[in-house]
Amino acid sequence: MSLIDALTRAHPALEVLPASAATAPYAYDAGTRRTPVEHGPVVAFPATAAEVAAVVRTAADLGVSVVPRGAGTGLSGGASAGADQLVVSTERLTRIVEISPADELAVVEPGVINADLNTALAPYGLFYAPDPASYAISTLGGNIATNAGGLRCAKYGVTRESVLALDVVLPDGALVHVGHRSIKGVTGLDLVSLFVGSEGVLGIVVGATLRLRPLPVARRTLTAFFDSTGEGARALGAITASRVRPAVVEFLDEPTLRDIDAHSGSDLRRRGASLALVELDGFGIDEQTAELITALTAAGGRVAVVPDGEAPLLWELRRSGRGLGQGAPTWYVGEDIAVPRSALPAVFDYFPVLEARYGVRVSAVAHAGDGNLHPLLKLPIPPGLEGTPAPPALGAAATDLVAFALSRGGTVSGEHGIGTVKLDWAALELDDRVQRLSHAIKDAVDPDDVLNPGKALPAPVLQPA
Amino acid sequence: MSLIDALTRAHPALEVLPASAATAPYAYDAGTRRTPVEHGPVVAFPATAAEVAAVVRTAADLGVSVVPRGAGTGLSGGASAGADQLVVSTERLTRIVEISPADELAVVEPGVINADLNTALAPYGLFYAPDPASYAISTLGGNIATNAGGLRCAKYGVTRESVLALDVVLPDGALVHVGHRSIKGVTGLDLVSLFVGSEGVLGIVVGATLRLRPLPVARRTLTAFFDSTGEGARALGAITASRVRPAVVEFLDEPTLRDIDAHSGSDLRRRGASLALVELDGFGIDEQTAELITALTAAGGRVAVVPDGEAPLLWELRRSGRGLGQGAPTWYVGEDIAVPRSALPAVFDYFPVLEARYGVRVSAVAHAGDGNLHPLLKLPIPPGLEGTPAPPALGAAATDLVAFALSRGGTVSGEHGIGTVKLDWAALELDDRVQRLSHAIKDAVDPDDVLNPGKALPAPVLQPA
Repeated sequence: MSLIDALTRAHPALEVLPASAATAPYAYDAGTRRTPVEHGPVVAFPATAAEVAAVVRTAADLGVSVVPRGAGTGLSGGASAGADQLVVSTERLTRIVEISPADELAVVEPGVINADLNTALAPYGLFYAPDPASYAISTLGGNIATNAGGLRCAKYGVTRESVLALDVVLPDGALVHVGHRSIKGVTGLDLVSLFVGSEGVLGIVVGATLRLRPLPVARRTLTAFFDSTGEGARALGAITASRVRPAVVEFLDEPTLRDIDAHSGSDLRRRGASLALVELDGFGIDEQTAELITALTAAGGRVAVVPDGEAPLLWELRRSGRGLGQGAPTWYVGEDIAVPRSALPAVFDYFPVLEARYGVRVSAVAHAGDGNLHPLLKLPIPPGLEGTPAPPALGAAATDLVAFALSRGGTVSGEHGIGTVKLDWAALELDDRVQRLSHAIKDAVDPDDVLNPGKALPAPVLQPA
Repeated sequence: MSLIDALTRAHPALEVLPASAATAPYAYDAGTRRTPVEHGPVVAFPATAAEVAAVVRTAADLGVSVVPRGAGTGLSGGASAGADQLVVSTERLTRIVEISPADELAVVEPGVINADLNTALAPYGLFYAPDPASYAISTLGGNIATNAGGLRCAKYGVTRESVLALDVVLPDGALVHVGHRSIKGVTGLDLVSLFVGSEGVLGIVVGATLRLRPLPVARRTLTAFFDSTGEGARALGAITASRVRPAVVEFLDEPTLRDIDAHSGSDLRRRGASLALVELDGFGIDEQTAELITALTAAGGRVAVVPDGEAPLLWELRRSGRGLGQGAPTWYVGEDIAVPRSALPAVFDYFPVLEARYGVRVSAVAHAGDGNLHPLLKLPIPPGLEGTPAPPALGAAATDLVAFALSRGGTVSGEHGIGTVKLDWAALELDDRVQRLSHAIKDAVDPDDVLNPGKALPAPVLQPA
């Protein structure tokens, strides 16, 4: 029996799209969209956790592998699907089941959009801290599957730190609950943390109990402009050396300021050659502001407090990206490396080395508070070569930069995940024994490789017998 | 060949104690000390990570199982060992390898005492946040193995939130590194979190990269006394409803205040029938103090700011415990349940129910900020019955209370772990499928059950074929 027949027979009420040109958008996510397909996979839209479980069981019985999918905003190909796979979309699981101010938690279905939860929480004076750049369009289930980061992580933690409990559909269709509604809890292995960030290879999140926080009593945005990228990158250490821990520290290098100005009409580059954009929050906002101004000024910054009315515009400039897709056509690779904070200046210093060695252009914004950078490596496409693959130099430069981050104790992915796109880089990071250990765990949880096969975990070199 | 012969032959420089009466203290930890043994296990004291790896390999080759041990301060039997097992002590692995203020991290060996790290960090203006009550005597390796909590967890997180990377000896003696020196990182499965809190059943931590924080710019201690335990427990919700998030909120009920007064000569009970002992820290300490005084006063508290000179004494009274072992001989059971904060009043209200039903005495202190309680259930021992087992009513009352916590969305262990002592209770919390999943992961990592067999994971009911 075909998959689509089996699904509609076993689950008459299930919304399901047959494999067709219409489901082609479900064949890729934002990380693999550049190589579109003609024909998409079968896509199921279960409306309840039990329906997810039943659909997975049906697929497993037929030997069809399952690709879990939230909003498809992932940047690493974690939600891309082959024509012979079943995509299980969580788009219909959009209920905010509970908001408990007394316990500072919310219980949600996985298809809830990150920003929608915060909209619902605002009247309670609460917020959900993890704020990936995609917060307006990405789902909480996807955020959990990738252990999504964001701007506020240095102070408030990544997604993992905000997940108390999960309802998970296992690869055989069993529905389990792990974790608890209490803040603390150490009973048994920490399966919540194991599922968070596992990119759908161990289970499908169908419910989550999320930790909330009180909205800060005050917020303040500061800018610190510097005369060069290097000076700014080195000045970031002054924040660590102070006693202030901002909610957000974004660092934008010189090419990034120029790019933003070019596509937004702003005048950032005129004000300096690099920018630390800082948000303070919480009690004692004036004390915090004074201490940070002292620290950054001593480090060479021209520091200003941004009037409250102007702050949203600056943050919007930062979040709106760097104008890719505008101007001359360009081959590009986006990275997501993270390094120990002290290594940030060395990373920016390495960009000119890469540019000289490979003929590419390199720039980056950094979530400087946690050492996470998003370097962008670009090569202009000569006239007539649009649509052709990038020259090997671009990929070589990207891999060179990844290796540099690893040599400084960093990681190939700070927050986007591995998916399919970063498998080769992940293999550079994880030693062979760790790769085999990870696959042993995957095999223990999913012996038939039903869930998201081939994603997230680089294939280990086989051990000689 | 005997284990001791194999160890001394393979590792001539290894410090090792043969099984004897002298090693009897290594047969139990602080959770199982009440049932001492005559004869202890073989104990090895490796001095390097490589030596730990080699010793584990030797034991595995001989089919001898290994019990990892830090300072033996655990309260759940996780480090207790049979006479046929090998105890691998980390007592010789006491180096603080690195302190990096720029990256806010320390690299340590597992035998470093928690308090010793903080002593070393103070000159840098940094601290390591997790502070189990045993911080003066427990090792960081043991803290990691149990995902230890403490008083400051509601604000600063439990041990897991402070572990960036681990060096781990696997059950076959392989030495692996997982995690990174960056704050963020999502490459592959979160093996760091899997090892943290796994109570030595998956690997032995031989090195750890720990996240540090700046010492707060200010600290302030407040007391809030209430006219009854119930009134105080209900008032705790006023803290959550405020925008202040204290570093510590300890709640002491009426019998606890009396016990402390009896063994310390203090006069807490005269000042009220329950006490919320609060530490605020960070910027805006006066604003925080004012908002919290308003909130707790409105909730019925008699709130006072404790003069700085007197605060350490109060915290010492809290940490020194409740005078167990003094006064009339008593059978007792100590618990470590955690519940959603809103359920704290219900738990305290349940104590009189238990007392009436089982004839026991019940009291508790609570890490109220994260809903973690340490109830103490006691039965006086009638003259002549010292040394005899407690009547079944005591255990029945303890299990009844655990079930109550679970019914409120809580957990049987907030921070002490399961070890051997709480296996039956863990089985009440974890559904059968989750137990089987946990064992499947244990089997994948440790197929020969070399490391700490029988601990931490309740044995699942066997699935019918």
